[in-house]
Amino acid sequence: MPDDTTGGAKARLFDAVERRRDRLTDLSRRIWEEPEVALRETESARRLREALREEGFEVETGVGGMETAFVARYGEGDPTVATMGEFDALPGMSQTATAERDPREPGAPGHGCGHNLFGVGSLGGALAVRDAIERGDCGGTVVYFGTPAEEAGGGKVYMVRDGAFDGVDAVVSWHPGWYNAPGKGSCLAVDAYEVAFEGETSHAAAAPEAGRSALDGVHLLNTGIEFMREHVPEAARIHYVVSEGGGAANVVPAAATTECLVRAPDRAQVERIGGWVRDIAEGAALMSRTDVEVTKTSAMYGVLPNHALADRIRANMDQVHRAGGISLSDDQREFSADLRASLGDVSLGRLPAEYHDEVRNRAMYTEPLDAPDEGTTGSYSTDSGDVSWTVPLGRFTAATWPVGTPAHSWQAVAAGRDLGTEGALFAAKTIAATLYDLLVDGELRTAARAEFDDRTGERGYDCGLPADANPYELVSR
Amino acid sequence: MPDDTTGGAKARLFDAVERRRDRLTDLSRRIWEEPEVALRETESARRLREALREEGFEVETGVGGMETAFVARYGEGDPTVATMGEFDALPGMSQTATAERDPREPGAPGHGCGHNLFGVGSLGGALAVRDAIERGDCGGTVVYFGTPAEEAGGGKVYMVRDGAFDGVDAVVSWHPGWYNAPGKGSCLAVDAYEVAFEGETSHAAAAPEAGRSALDGVHLLNTGIEFMREHVPEAARIHYVVSEGGGAANVVPAAATTECLVRAPDRAQVERIGGWVRDIAEGAALMSRTDVEVTKTSAMYGVLPNHALADRIRANMDQVHRAGGISLSDDQREFSADLRASLGDVSLGRLPAEYHDEVRNRAMYTEPLDAPDEGTTGSYSTDSGDVSWTVPLGRFTAATWPVGTPAHSWQAVAAGRDLGTEGALFAAKTIAATLYDLLVDGELRTAARAEFDDRTGERGYDCGLPADANPYELVSR
Amino acid sequence: MPDDTTGGAKARLFDAVERRRDRLTDLSRRIWEEPEVALRETESARRLREALREEGFEVETGVGGMETAFVARYGEGDPTVATMGEFDALPGMSQTATAERDPREPGAPGHGCGHNLFGVGSLGGALAVRDAIERGDCGGTVVYFGTPAEEAGGGKVYMVRDGAFDGVDAVVSWHPGWYNAPGKGSCLAVDAYEVAFEGETSHAAAAPEAGRSALDGVHLLNTGIEFMREHVPEAARIHYVVSEGGGAANVVPAAATTECLVRAPDRAQVERIGGWVRDIAEGAALMSRTDVEVTKTSAMYGVLPNHALADRIRANMDQVHRAGGISLSDDQREFSADLRASLGDVSLGRLPAEYHDEVRNRAMYTEPLDAPDEGTTGSYSTDSGDVSWTVPLGRFTAATWPVGTPAHSWQAVAAGRDLGTEGALFAAKTIAATLYDLLVDGELRTAARAEFDDRTGERGYDCGLPADANPYELVSR
Amino acid sequence: MPDDTTGGAKARLFDAVERRRDRLTDLSRRIWEEPEVALRETESARRLREALREEGFEVETGVGGMETAFVARYGEGDPTVATMGEFDALPGMSQTATAERDPREPGAPGHGCGHNLFGVGSLGGALAVRDAIERGDCGGTVVYFGTPAEEAGGGKVYMVRDGAFDGVDAVVSWHPGWYNAPGKGSCLAVDAYEVAFEGETSHAAAAPEAGRSALDGVHLLNTGIEFMREHVPEAARIHYVVSEGGGAANVVPAAATTECLVRAPDRAQVERIGGWVRDIAEGAALMSRTDVEVTKTSAMYGVLPNHALADRIRANMDQVHRAGGISLSDDQREFSADLRASLGDVSLGRLPAEYHDEVRNRAMYTEPLDAPDEGTTGSYSTDSGDVSWTVPLGRFTAATWPVGTPAHSWQAVAAGRDLGTEGALFAAKTIAATLYDLLVDGELRTAARAEFDDRTGERGYDCGLPADANPYELVSR
Repeated sequence: MPDDTTGGAKARLFDAVERRRDRLTDLSRRIWEEPEVALRETESARRLREALREEGFEVETGVGGMETAFVARYGEGDPTVATMGEFDALPGMSQTATAERDPREPGAPGHGCGHNLFGVGSLGGALAVRDAIERGDCGGTVVYFGTPAEEAGGGKVYMVRDGAFDGVDAVVSWHPGWYNAPGKGSCLAVDAYEVAFEGETSHAAAAPEAGRSALDGVHLLNTGIEFMREHVPEAARIHYVVSEGGGAANVVPAAATTECLVRAPDRAQVERIGGWVRDIAEGAALMSRTDVEVTKTSAMYGVLPNHALADRIRANMDQVHRAGGISLSDDQREFSADLRASLGDVSLGRLPAEYHDEVRNRAMYTEPLDAPDEGTTGSYSTDSGDVSWTVPLGRFTAATWPVGTPAHSWQAVAAGRDLGTEGALFAAKTIAATLYDLLVDGELRTAARAEFDDRTGERGYDCGLPADANPYELVSR
Repeated sequence: MPDDTTGGAKARLFDAVERRRDRLTDLSRRIWEEPEVALRETESARRLREALREEGFEVETGVGGMETAFVARYGEGDPTVATMGEFDALPGMSQTATAERDPREPGAPGHGCGHNLFGVGSLGGALAVRDAIERGDCGGTVVYFGTPAEEAGGGKVYMVRDGAFDGVDAVVSWHPGWYNAPGKGSCLAVDAYEVAFEGETSHAAAAPEAGRSALDGVHLLNTGIEFMREHVPEAARIHYVVSEGGGAANVVPAAATTECLVRAPDRAQVERIGGWVRDIAEGAALMSRTDVEVTKTSAMYGVLPNHALADRIRANMDQVHRAGGISLSDDQREFSADLRASLGDVSLGRLPAEYHDEVRNRAMYTEPLDAPDEGTTGSYSTDSGDVSWTVPLGRFTAATWPVGTPAHSWQAVAAGRDLGTEGALFAAKTIAATLYDLLVDGELRTAARAEFDDRTGERGYDCGLPADANPYELVSR
Repeated sequence: MPDDTTGGAKARLFDAVERRRDRLTDLSRRIWEEPEVALRETESARRLREALREEGFEVETGVGGMETAFVARYGEGDPTVATMGEFDALPGMSQTATAERDPREPGAPGHGCGHNLFGVGSLGGALAVRDAIERGDCGGTVVYFGTPAEEAGGGKVYMVRDGAFDGVDAVVSWHPGWYNAPGKGSCLAVDAYEVAFEGETSHAAAAPEAGRSALDGVHLLNTGIEFMREHVPEAARIHYVVSEGGGAANVVPAAATTECLVRAPDRAQVERIGGWVRDIAEGAALMSRTDVEVTKTSAMYGVLPNHALADRIRANMDQVHRAGGISLSDDQREFSADLRASLGDVSLGRLPAEYHDEVRNRAMYTEPLDAPDEGTTGSYSTDSGDVSWTVPLGRFTAATWPVGTPAHSWQAVAAGRDLGTEGALFAAKTIAATLYDLLVDGELRTAARAEFDDRTGERGYDCGLPADANPYELVSR
Repeated sequence: MPDDTTGGAKARLFDAVERRRDRLTDLSRRIWEEPEVALRETESARRLREALREEGFEVETGVGGMETAFVARYGEGDPTVATMGEFDALPGMSQTATAERDPREPGAPGHGCGHNLFGVGSLGGALAVRDAIERGDCGGTVVYFGTPAEEAGGGKVYMVRDGAFDGVDAVVSWHPGWYNAPGKGSCLAVDAYEVAFEGETSHAAAAPEAGRSALDGVHLLNTGIEFMREHVPEAARIHYVVSEGGGAANVVPAAATTECLVRAPDRAQVERIGGWVRDIAEGAALMSRTDVEVTKTSAMYGVLPNHALADRIRANMDQVHRAGGISLSDDQREFSADLRASLGDVSLGRLPAEYHDEVRNRAMYTEPLDAPDEGTTGSYSTDSGDVSWTVPLGRFTAATWPVGTPAHSWQAVAAGRDLGTEGALFAAKTIAATLYDLLVDGELRTAARAEFDDRTGERGYDCGLPADANPYELVSR
């Protein structure tokens, strides 16, 4: 698509982002400096909501039963296009914006997944589209979904269940990373279970025969899971920890708990395996003569790719790149080199082999790439999966971190304050351009919807959460 | 009790045994030479039955549903006193009557528990009492119970269940061993279970996810048992083997089986623990998504001691000893010394410590001893337990083997042909004297019964076998 | 022993305790109201030390490397006799002095084992002997051992290792309970282990094959222990908890820990089993390809009884009882009845069966009893064991709690403030009388020492702690 | 390749096979009727050897240390091309040549993998090439490898190790199946282990503490393997059975054994995982205080595909098909329909989806297909793998069985007598044509060798068997 087909509208979108550069980078930095974990992102959410309100968005809060979830709308009538912003931090990941491991406050949270950039980058995109609507470059409505608790609990699932995405034609979203590329892959659906055993306490030396060990229940459950492993499809993943394993060693433990995740490419598989885990839990209770309670604490779909949207994102990335793309200051360049050096020999993951040599010697890789994950199912899970089963979702990664930086590393935190903002602005422009295309290009909307219908087929979306699931109860567990 | 209180009657009993010395030793040797395992003791049972029939006993066969079980009676009316004879051999214990390990036929059975002596010693006792009745020294009836399948299956339990012991006033029985002493101890009640899992076969490399492993069921069952162990009374014993563990390693096993024994001092405990094992089996099936069938293959009571009978046995042993006791030929003495030497440093078990020094240097120890097991619960089980809960049972050990010889050793087999017959004749005389006492001494009968009533209390006897238990099906498993 | 053989000296000892009744009960109450857990008993230790210093004792602090351990001496030269006082509380046992479950401060510590009474009762005994020495009723030295950290870490073991008990002729000590009786039993020796596995972290969905699970190490260790259980002597006890079982379920756990206790009647057995546990830990590390570190965090001997001292304690209890014994006020009696009612149907443990009917209907049972534990090995452990292998130790229980009150129950806490002080004074008098006997009666000292020598035989005492064991490091684990 | 490029030579090859139709089908039937299991295929091997000797082949026997392995050569000098024939049967698979489950002799072996056809089909190919050489249509040497023990032990591995394939330019081989297609896929490398534990026996009730359970070793090994499973690459396969799980349940088992297979796409992986299994075995021995011996009983490479040879096979299949292909008699057609019906709804495995509808309704599918396995790694293993790492190997499947017939099914046995011979003759012609091409077409040989060199790269072949591996010892295990 030649740049001029949109008559300069995209250039205006990019300008709209650049005009807000200081406000956006400042907002990102404030969220970075006050990291808040899942469902406690009160200030982060408030800042984003206010930025939207100030620009004329109507904001609904408390969506999906979560105080920090919100939906902000600008414009009127159809089409309705949307982006999403995450903003929760990770516990224990506190780190200064320096090229060595150095917690700002030991044990405190930190933005290890770049969600300060995520929320603000998407904000920039939504605001630019807002200008286009105001200006009359296009009609319709633009929506910003403030989606909390991605790192724990899966806030988007509650929002989807609450109908927040109903009536939206398409969503375009992104995630911080170390390259610029659309996503065409899927990932694993997941269910999370808490399996709590309750036995009878007794003095373990004086009367072990009077005790019934909840820890035995946990051991037998986990052993049962290991024996099950051979007999489920090899792409499935089951993993667990013992979150409660008894108190004093001289007391038969009356309470013990396993936290277990079940993943597979398909939700039906996840549920079949989850049913088996429930049977194992029941078997372990029978074996240990204890009681067991199995609680599903989270349930997510794998991501449904949308190639129509991914291809348009790719094209817009090129435009953004030609219009300047990611341009680093000397300080940023120097810092990125230091940070890159601290990573040592990194994995380049799914990046095509032909790029490896070139990329490996770069601190930042800012040229747009084709989707490296086409046809693959990533061994991760995200609450964007449920969104993708509800509405056509276009996804991409933007380069906010040095080459090879793993998410949830201190380097990702360090990059998030001053370096990653360039990638966030790149994301903002890409989102703005793609949402604009969706507003003006009915064929794109139709293609995205047709692909969505084709991929979901007859299966439809059926939220995996229990009817009475409450995010606050489950995340606190 | 002075020897003369019975007016020479006991001397006549001892003579009656001695008169049959050659026939009895010959019969014992023939059974030794043709060892037959549980429920296949056709020839051994036939020989014993014929010896009894020849002397005027009326013989009922096929008792308790077993072709080799029989009841032989002589005399008329009450009182009715009885002895028991076992005669089954052990698989794989073939051995010559020499002082070195040397199988007569490798892999063939052998009399490792001295049951050739057992059956014949009791026979000698019954025949001597028969003479006394015939002679008019006493009235009443003497019964010989031919009890097969002690080593596997517990033939006596089926005979008890069949009512074979109803109407008997008391039973006096013995077992080969390495000293002469009555028994005052108990032993463990036991239940045996076969736990068979059935899964679904599949190629273990090509489609493990389509298979459901019965061997997983077995593993989880056995692991569950190990986790249970801490939480049952410490005197309990649970042990198992995997009798079927899969075929080719490249096939998910569709069938696998654990054989499990549960023992405890008390039948109620045995059944409680057995119930738990059943729960574990059900849990293992749930865990491995297989089917499980639990079959109780055997059930026995612990032995109820009877001190009144034990004390009388002890007194009669003294009389037998004074009347010559066990007197070995030079050949027997030499052989016993060689066999003793082959045993090396032996355990003297419950023998009181003050005897140890003296006994340790002897090849055979033939002086009568007090019950070394009073107040103890031996960690073994026997189908005499069910008899002891049905009728007052006096038990003793006679010295057929060198000092310290363990049952089920090749030395026990070797001693059983030519050396152990002296102990068997000692046992015959002791049985004869004690059965005689029971026939003529109403107070002894009353005391034995009163003690029996006191020990059984309100619990009564309740056969532990399933209603449809069939010894042939269960032993063949 | 008639009361008058000591010429009124014992009456003066009892008076000496009574004169201090208010100070002692007040001191006990203050310690109860400010409960401090193991090695943090700063105020409790300080109060006891000051009470001793005020009465002329010389006090050494920081014994055995513990700030709250102390040794207080009064008098000069031999013989040297001693008592011991514990004063640490239990975490989480906070409770008001009422007859219903009601924490003073939820989650806070409480005196669930009556150590406020323990320390003060022994103090009363030592002070009374001090008066007798001052008065010239006897010569020699009386020592009070302030022994911290009984509930965690075993403070006395460090004091013994430090030589604190060297040169002492005998020790008389007690413990709160629900009857008055000397102890003639033993208990289990124990070793505590921390087994920490270290693996390699990895994303459990994306790259489980790159991770090495420390939690697998813990599971395999614990499973190995369960399989070992059948093959150790049945009186042994092995029990464990999982104190660290992984963090987030989506991460292969790099750290996981089992806390394990090994007990047996004999230290040699404890060490043999401990050696096996170490082998299992090494095996689990091999299996899970992780590293493992096994740390022995505690080691105690079983108690060596001393009948000579126990018999003298029993005689002195009679004198104390005749001199008034435990006499409750109306309030105390009423409260004890309410508390007794809250206990419902209690176990009377080793109390001889003939007492059961009488005792069961009483709120408090204050008549002295013969040692109910003679010939038994209690299934518990105490750091008094190491003392008993170093010096003749006389032990007794005094009735501070309602009939059947279990240690570590909220009822034990509730009774400790106002009701149990009567039992503590009873203990003080019994200690005073027995220490006095030891000072004046050379034959008693000789008999106690001879019995001690006989029981320890050639084995001697060999502290089970690692050479570099530090109580502060180990308790904090 | 047009049919005439080889100047009628191929037509003559096909004629050569047809001329021997009766002898070949008769020979196949005789081997079918006298099924012999691995290393006991004396008669089967003899029949094949004699057929070759009769036609002028020089035969070497006893190759690779196996009496039933042989190499038969015809011709002189280079090039040297070869085919292979298997002929061992499967235990327990006896079945008549009827369309219902009906063992000829219950429990006896049967040709469940069609090796009677395999050996004879390859024979037909070799004999046809022999004629061409004799006739002067081509020069060089043709070799027939008689390869025993494919089903157990992997006879070819021993032959490869013995250098039997040295100097061969290329091998063309086949396997019975239900379609005609060359193979372009790989399969899993495999190592087999026998892990034998040795403990100490003891009476499980009387003295479990004196026993060391070899069965505990087996349980801990297998549990360790289950815990390992999560942490190896997901394409790996590990599966095991318990071949020896103890004797009588009342005896602590002194011997117990696991048979374990380890598979993975790559031999390096197989060996890494095998090393881990050895560590687990050592860990299990440490844990159970037993001794363990790990014996590698088999080791095979995955198959290295050769597309150059596969493509030529495909072309030759077309020629064979055009020249008549597989043509069934009415009886054969009817029987194949009945047999097909007995299979019900079958899996069509890797067959491209577009064929499914057509194929599903056919009894036999005889048109040649393209390689359905290109780019895949089959979850099976074969001793042809080692051949393929030693010399370029072309492989194909010929339709001897009804559509969807699984190997190792009774239907495969039933089809092998009278129906499958048509497929075997098809295979003979395809082999003949391809070997002929290899003899006359230097470019084909060069291409096959170049591809072989490229695929093996620097890794080379390194036989996985232990130096002292003896097939007779290992198969008998």
